Amino acid sequence: MVDTLSQLSINRDRLIQSIEQLAQIGALPGGGVRRIAYSATDMQARDRVQQWMQAAGMSVNIDPAGNIIGKYPGKYPDAAALATGSHIDTVPNGGRYDGAFGVLAGLEVVRVLQEQQIQLNRSLEVIVFTDEEGTMIGSKAMSGRVILDPATYPRVDGIDIQTCLTRVGGDWRRLTEARRTAADIAAFVELHVEQGPVLECLGKQIGVVEGIVGQRRYIITVKGSSSHAGSTPMQMRQDALVAASRVVLAVNKIAHTPGGQQVATVGWMEVLPNAANVIPGLVKMSLDIRDLSSQHLDNLMAQLQAEIETIAVETQTYIDLQPRLRNEPALAKPQIQQAIAQACEDLRLSYTHLPSRASHDAQELATFTDMGMIFVPSKAGVSHAETEFTSPEQCAEGTNVLLHTFLELDRHYRCD
Amino acid sequence: MVDTLSQLSINRDRLIQSIEQLAQIGALPGGGVRRIAYSATDMQARDRVQQWMQAAGMSVNIDPAGNIIGKYPGKYPDAAALATGSHIDTVPNGGRYDGAFGVLAGLEVVRVLQEQQIQLNRSLEVIVFTDEEGTMIGSKAMSGRVILDPATYPRVDGIDIQTCLTRVGGDWRRLTEARRTAADIAAFVELHVEQGPVLECLGKQIGVVEGIVGQRRYIITVKGSSSHAGSTPMQMRQDALVAASRVVLAVNKIAHTPGGQQVATVGWMEVLPNAANVIPGLVKMSLDIRDLSSQHLDNLMAQLQAEIETIAVETQTYIDLQPRLRNEPALAKPQIQQAIAQACEDLRLSYTHLPSRASHDAQELATFTDMGMIFVPSKAGVSHAETEFTSPEQCAEGTNVLLHTFLELDRHYRCD
Repeated sequence: MVDTLSQLSINRDRLIQSIEQLAQIGALPGGGVRRIAYSATDMQARDRVQQWMQAAGMSVNIDPAGNIIGKYPGKYPDAAALATGSHIDTVPNGGRYDGAFGVLAGLEVVRVLQEQQIQLNRSLEVIVFTDEEGTMIGSKAMSGRVILDPATYPRVDGIDIQTCLTRVGGDWRRLTEARRTAADIAAFVELHVEQGPVLECLGKQIGVVEGIVGQRRYIITVKGSSSHAGSTPMQMRQDALVAASRVVLAVNKIAHTPGGQQVATVGWMEVLPNAANVIPGLVKMSLDIRDLSSQHLDNLMAQLQAEIETIAVETQTYIDLQPRLRNEPALAKPQIQQAIAQACEDLRLSYTHLPSRASHDAQELATFTDMGMIFVPSKAGVSHAETEFTSPEQCAEGTNVLLHTFLELDRHYRCD
Repeated sequence: MVDTLSQLSINRDRLIQSIEQLAQIGALPGGGVRRIAYSATDMQARDRVQQWMQAAGMSVNIDPAGNIIGKYPGKYPDAAALATGSHIDTVPNGGRYDGAFGVLAGLEVVRVLQEQQIQLNRSLEVIVFTDEEGTMIGSKAMSGRVILDPATYPRVDGIDIQTCLTRVGGDWRRLTEARRTAADIAAFVELHVEQGPVLECLGKQIGVVEGIVGQRRYIITVKGSSSHAGSTPMQMRQDALVAASRVVLAVNKIAHTPGGQQVATVGWMEVLPNAANVIPGLVKMSLDIRDLSSQHLDNLMAQLQAEIETIAVETQTYIDLQPRLRNEPALAKPQIQQAIAQACEDLRLSYTHLPSRASHDAQELATFTDMGMIFVPSKAGVSHAETEFTSPEQCAEGTNVLLHTFLELDRHYRCD
């Protein structure tokens, strides 16, 4: 039996065919997909996935948050399940792999098990989370961290969240009932395209995710003094853009501090009055900083604060830093990382450990159960675009790793 | 006679009264003035000044560019005249001193001469230049550097330049006849508020202007690569804003290079796509750089170009610098600077030499005759605003310097 399992492989053609078929729903002319959560195409795709789940021998339930939960029963159906999943909604001009690949890979794993008449000790769930690209209401409801005020979920089309959930078979009034615990799900592993360039650059086939980085966002305001660019001598200036430029470089410097895997970015900047012949009096800018360790982020921000104080004194400006967003890091369970790495070894696939610097439903699951993530390469690191691409071979490799990770976890998480 | 002349002083109350009266034409509630060139208020003010000139014993002519030329005849009426002047048009929310003070100070000098029955060797002209705040068509026509294409003079109100000139007694078809030479004007001295903070900061009463700085303006484009602020590791970035920030600091560094009185400013910046979670892929910004010496500007720009090349290589970006505007410096004649300094000494007024970093009609006059400028302090360096202020005492001091400068120049520029 062990020998048979170690030889087990997913069906690459069937996997790719499913990806192709799902990509037809909401297909864009350029090869991408537009499948906004709760839209007609989203609902069509949800129906298709449910049909596929049932055909693969799974029971299908929709929880009050609209999450689709397909369950392939195990030998010990009362034991906490193993679970995988992702999302099938997209950004307005999305690709066909972001989210959808993780769901269809989970489905393919179950198809193989059913085909080979293999029953795991634990049940295996494949979950489609609601509205990952928007509110993440699906995974947040599952973790019990959902906000129960409908005003939190404004939509450009003006449709309220209650109506949205009803459309997909959910129920706003029973939203808290979507909550699950470690008694329901023993381990959750999400397979996803990297959405970054690291695996491709390093020439690795598989990424063993160490965790999903914590993210902090700030608005930095630099107040100087606006005056005539001609008649104000250099030594009499309080140029907010000169100070702001030093802040940008200070941010870049702390981002290159050894000892972490942090990234830090000033992506947005507004200069006032923004005229060629006027010294800038006011600059506002964003700061986005991410790392796997909250402690490391604290240290970096303390360094930056000290730098900013020096800059403010030296440029005679006033610099203020206001927090706008704070997401804590979600670490992947070492045992799950080890199971993924072991699967790579067994399948002779190259791999590297790396953080996920983008958000995923897995970060919510990590708040109540053991979590892991598997990455496959994204061509040129591109995602959230029609040109998003991961080759059939790479998709198959990732799905095989997912399959063997679950075989390993089913041994590891004993039911007795 | 020399003793009498050295004791000569302008009438401060009369000067201030004229400033007050002119400021009533186009007066704004906040104390400022709105007197756009060619508007009803501009024409009303032009009429008032002409009446005052005639009452002070001057002949008044309007040249084809609409310049008002008041002439107080000298003993040698055929010799090239001494001249002063400025403008009485304003920016939309202007102050009462910018321009108007120079014209009314010139008028006050003539009033004193007439009152004391003093005739200089040379005639003394007081000139009101047309549309200084807009096209500078008046002084440019006088220097022969005017552009003869009406399309060069578009106006927000849609009125063509031919109509505008006709309104103020000019004639577009004869515009080239407004040209004058050193045979007409032997020396031109403009008195103006500084419009900057230097005199106030140094605690000096008078500025002896060394010249009007040359100005060059460029658009700098930094091309990097836009990607996700989360999933792109630091060492794989081509962040256009990081590169642009280094350019801003390089500009600031060359502006602080010893050896010149240059100023350099990045006043305008546009970041694309300008979103907190996206690494900037493109930054465009302005560069405005000014100095009295073209050679020094050449050297500074060569330094900056070298710095920019280093920055482009180190940040893996492409940086392009395109010229947009180039005005050559206009140097003040040393003899005129000396006459102004001597007048300050005689009047026991503190003074400093400094460049004018704003544009003035005097820069056009400098292209064909000897030019000088006198500055008086601007409170807090403010101009082009309703809060523009120079005290009555400061106005009187500047006007006395103008008077004694002309007395000195009339001796210096001999007619035989």
